[in-house]
Amino acid sequence: MVTSHWTAAPAPASLRRRGAVLERAILDAALDQLSTVGWNGLTMEGVAAGAQTGKAAVYRRWPSKEDLVADALQAGLPPIEEAPDLGSVREDLLELCRRTREGMFSRPGFALRAVIHECDPAQAERFHGVIFEGVVEPTIKLLREVVTRGIERGEVRPDAANGYVLDAIPAMMMYRSKLCASEWDDRDLEEMIDQLMLPLLRSAKG
Amino acid sequence: MVTSHWTAAPAPASLRRRGAVLERAILDAALDQLSTVGWNGLTMEGVAAGAQTGKAAVYRRWPSKEDLVADALQAGLPPIEEAPDLGSVREDLLELCRRTREGMFSRPGFALRAVIHECDPAQAERFHGVIFEGVVEPTIKLLREVVTRGIERGEVRPDAANGYVLDAIPAMMMYRSKLCASEWDDRDLEEMIDQLMLPLLRSAKG
Repeated sequence: MVTSHWTAAPAPASLRRRGAVLERAILDAALDQLSTVGWNGLTMEGVAAGAQTGKAAVYRRWPSKEDLVADALQAGLPPIEEAPDLGSVREDLLELCRRTREGMFSRPGFALRAVIHECDPAQAERFHGVIFEGVVEPTIKLLREVVTRGIERGEVRPDAANGYVLDAIPAMMMYRSKLCASEWDDRDLEEMIDQLMLPLLRSAKG
Repeated sequence: MVTSHWTAAPAPASLRRRGAVLERAILDAALDQLSTVGWNGLTMEGVAAGAQTGKAAVYRRWPSKEDLVADALQAGLPPIEEAPDLGSVREDLLELCRRTREGMFSRPGFALRAVIHECDPAQAERFHGVIFEGVVEPTIKLLREVVTRGIERGEVRPDAANGYVLDAIPAMMMYRSKLCASEWDDRDLEEMIDQLMLPLLRSAKG
């Protein structure tokens, strides 16, 4: 969507996009910029150019960079899914990890991570809602369901569904992605589940 | 160290700092900038002003921002310590966590985290050495020593000293610091050790 002409001449009335179509183009361009040049590299001008529209069209709807990014992240959220139920906590966790990986390495995922990493706490306040309610809490909810089913099956110890245990997968995936540029291929995910999560979760009799 | 006059008149010869003293002032100013305005906010001009010297004095020694930041991070590294030996893996891990917290919330710690979070993979390559050899590997080494001693004592299961287990504490501390602005007070550290690490490490008979 990035175009080289920064000042686009107004298109004929029949070709000018309106309403939802133009807004979608602007939000897409914002996600595109976030995922490539990050929060710091994103400019309202660059977004306008990427959406092949003028700056005024962007500012009219989103008075500030923060407003635009908050809406772009919200619009980019994946749909909420059901928890997997594949027969064992190992298989369920692996499936959740694969979904998390797909999310992390999608365009909205790169955009979200750029905001998480680059924004100082004051800026991040603005995105707290979309980060937590949009991504973190739904992920933890699915992990909790999977772990709870494992407790019911007797695979998992009864006291395992606590905040630190449930944060372990997101924390490890973010950490190794950032520090080692890990792309979390299937073997990495299996090693994490087998070496970290199963010993952490298993019951004395599991 | 930050001063408001961006172009300092040359000081009299008797007051001009030389060699190691001036270099130390420049590296301190770089750490100061990194820890407050981050990698993106740091400029060679700002560092020169913070060190109360001219840009030329900075560029003469460090041709680029990357060179300067790499040396500043290196100079800010804490001394390598011995692993604690307090009688139990719980107490040893808590002591390592407290040291990690002090490091994270020190000025060099803030500087290092700014670089980790803000730099894209290409830039981060330049700092890979100081991040890994200076901080990550020494930390993992101490964690491994403590866990190994726990294995020898029979507190910890024999297969616990693997990469994912040893990464769990750094990953969790970085994650909650970034996502929740956690300051990891003593109670948070104890909860992490008791709810995450001890169940993960303990042997069947421990």
